[in-house]
Amino acid sequence: MIILGIDPGYATVGYGVVNYDGHRFETLGYGAITTPADLPFAERLEIIYRDMGELIEHFRPDYMSIEKLFFNTNITTGIEVAHARGVILLQAVQHCLPYKEYTPMQVKQSIVGYGKAEKKQVMLMTQSFLHLPSLPRPDDAADALAMAICLGHSTNSLLEEQK
Amino acid sequence: MIILGIDPGYATVGYGVVNYDGHRFETLGYGAITTPADLPFAERLEIIYRDMGELIEHFRPDYMSIEKLFFNTNITTGIEVAHARGVILLQAVQHCLPYKEYTPMQVKQSIVGYGKAEKKQVMLMTQSFLHLPSLPRPDDAADALAMAICLGHSTNSLLEEQK
Repeated sequence: MIILGIDPGYATVGYGVVNYDGHRFETLGYGAITTPADLPFAERLEIIYRDMGELIEHFRPDYMSIEKLFFNTNITTGIEVAHARGVILLQAVQHCLPYKEYTPMQVKQSIVGYGKAEKKQVMLMTQSFLHLPSLPRPDDAADALAMAICLGHSTNSLLEEQK
Repeated sequence: MIILGIDPGYATVGYGVVNYDGHRFETLGYGAITTPADLPFAERLEIIYRDMGELIEHFRPDYMSIEKLFFNTNITTGIEVAHARGVILLQAVQHCLPYKEYTPMQVKQSIVGYGKAEKKQVMLMTQSFLHLPSLPRPDDAADALAMAICLGHSTNSLLEEQK
């Protein structure tokens, strides 16, 4: 099962692609879509939309795992991220790609076993699950890989849903 | 100058299309894109994206006028509206359609001359500007027509920008 993890944003969208056989994870690719700060906002959305389409067509994932948004700090940034997340979900549905959403706390729980784990712990465990020689960079890509692992860990319940 | 006014939402997107010659407004059409509440969220985004594309191709506007989002009440709803607004702006940029954003207060100021005007006053003035026999329905369409008038009123400064 190929899983595309997404850490949504409008300046940077982290992505991480893994294959999961029910026991082990294989890393297929990771990185970030970035958009120039000096471009009009809608043009940045267009870059995200276009690049997301290319990612999906290249890796042909079976699932997308994308961070659920909630805001208690910077609402203005959150609104802009939600615009970007809209065009990401649009690409998913246009490619008939089912998606699951997880909160940061659910991801931490899934990766480290503790919902309030520190970011560094999550990154080290992500590196370990994926047998990577070093911490994945940028951070957005590491977060996206963690999203993908989180969905992998919930595979059994996904398989239950498909029955 | 053909102006497409948009009142963004994810359950209902109001639209209103006017032609403005610098003196008078002519109403070309108005209505609402609606999405079924029982559909998955991403599929509702896809309906909005598709219908927005059809609207733009049908009316071939010169400008889009779209409400600026800010939230002090229901953040969860605001996040969902921002997702929808993302796919609306995506259609604008994909059709090389420039857009302007206005806050509700700016629209009220432009239509009634008073930023804290009541909704009913705005609707009556919108009806008057557009020479409509009755109040436009639904409310989302009336709000979208007001957005379009607001952009029309700022035409002089837009023309200045183009010099």
